[in-house]
Amino acid sequence: MRDTSAAIIVIGNEILSGKVTDTNAAFLCRELRGLGVTLKRILVIPDELPAIAAAVRDYHRQFDIVFTSGGVGPTHDDITMEGIAQGLGRKIVRDPWLEEKVREYSPGTINEARLKMAEVPEGSELVFGNDLTFPAVKLLNIYILPGIPELFRNKFLAFKSRFAVDPFHMRIVYTRSIESSIAECLNKTLAAFPDLLLGSYPKLNDPEYRVRVTLESKDREYLDRAFAHLMAQLPQSAVVRTE
Amino acid sequence: MRDTSAAIIVIGNEILSGKVTDTNAAFLCRELRGLGVTLKRILVIPDELPAIAAAVRDYHRQFDIVFTSGGVGPTHDDITMEGIAQGLGRKIVRDPWLEEKVREYSPGTINEARLKMAEVPEGSELVFGNDLTFPAVKLLNIYILPGIPELFRNKFLAFKSRFAVDPFHMRIVYTRSIESSIAECLNKTLAAFPDLLLGSYPKLNDPEYRVRVTLESKDREYLDRAFAHLMAQLPQSAVVRTE
Repeated sequence: MRDTSAAIIVIGNEILSGKVTDTNAAFLCRELRGLGVTLKRILVIPDELPAIAAAVRDYHRQFDIVFTSGGVGPTHDDITMEGIAQGLGRKIVRDPWLEEKVREYSPGTINEARLKMAEVPEGSELVFGNDLTFPAVKLLNIYILPGIPELFRNKFLAFKSRFAVDPFHMRIVYTRSIESSIAECLNKTLAAFPDLLLGSYPKLNDPEYRVRVTLESKDREYLDRAFAHLMAQLPQSAVVRTE
Repeated sequence: MRDTSAAIIVIGNEILSGKVTDTNAAFLCRELRGLGVTLKRILVIPDELPAIAAAVRDYHRQFDIVFTSGGVGPTHDDITMEGIAQGLGRKIVRDPWLEEKVREYSPGTINEARLKMAEVPEGSELVFGNDLTFPAVKLLNIYILPGIPELFRNKFLAFKSRFAVDPFHMRIVYTRSIESSIAECLNKTLAAFPDLLLGSYPKLNDPEYRVRVTLESKDREYLDRAFAHLMAQLPQSAVVRTE
């Protein structure tokens, strides 16, 4: 089975200037991994139409699913909808369902800034999920999500089940050897199990271990054999513990 | 004066799969902002040669400074040097100075995995700084930094002074109005001060304020006039405090 690939485009000057630390991408990394979707890119770009249009056009073609985060509010710098529309050669239209909701939820007089929140690229669908007051907007394979972390999470969690494919299985080996001492063992295991996803993560100043080695595969049995192969290579004294 | 632009390429499957949360990009965002360098892209890509080569080739041309994070250790998945070499059409060579250091610091017998850490794209320079045992590697406008956060920071801090250009000045307004109520005031200020960098960041469930509005410019006097313009637009009751 071919992997399902995904990319995230985070839109916002506030991230790039260090005023706000993005947490949406890290959240989505973990969620997608749990669902078995392979995340291939995280891209953070400024609130600039050409950058948004180019990123969306490229990733829409390259990956199965694209998520955007940010730039969908009522203010001058919220230009994600327009950028996506440009990238895919669409017009911006006012969605009747969203317009009604915006009017319903607007305290006092409605203004242009509020109505901007009902504007979407032509051909967009609304994605409803459990307990969502406002749906997410989807155009082709692009899910358009707000940047505010609580809203980003709520929307994603409301419809995440549609992405569930085939999760990865993982084993972990913690070693007290430094990375360059075990590199040859890792290379041998990878040569014998070329489809294994093998990661090695040094930790400085940890009293317990020096390197965390992760082995991953969607095939449980293949993973178990690769794990046994690696354990047979490593000197017993090198292994702190396994998971 | 033209802005100095920068981009960061973070290389590592461990980030995309959610096993490790990257902190190097956020660190660099804040540092570059303090130096007056405009960060234009953060890109996270897997440990794959074509992805590294393409990203480095593009960003090397598009931006003044490029930083890479990760993929420079001794293991099978450390292919950043090779990816950069491919992207810029260079060969990989062993740097004599690095080789001597690697041999000096290697406990016991030297092996191929350790010597890999002396390999760089042809034409690279070594960048020394205060207190660096190992220098950073630089090829043209590309600074090649390790992914381990302590090492990434130490190397960057050792030579950051070379990037100091012209810092941004910032004012902040905290409002108790919701974003859509103040959007028109923001738009008017931006129309009057088109070079202002204006950000508006809603916060949910905060007892103190609902939106933090940031105004930024490298021109102190322009910033002060824009700030006064915005304050004159906003209803007095909307403003919690300013910074």
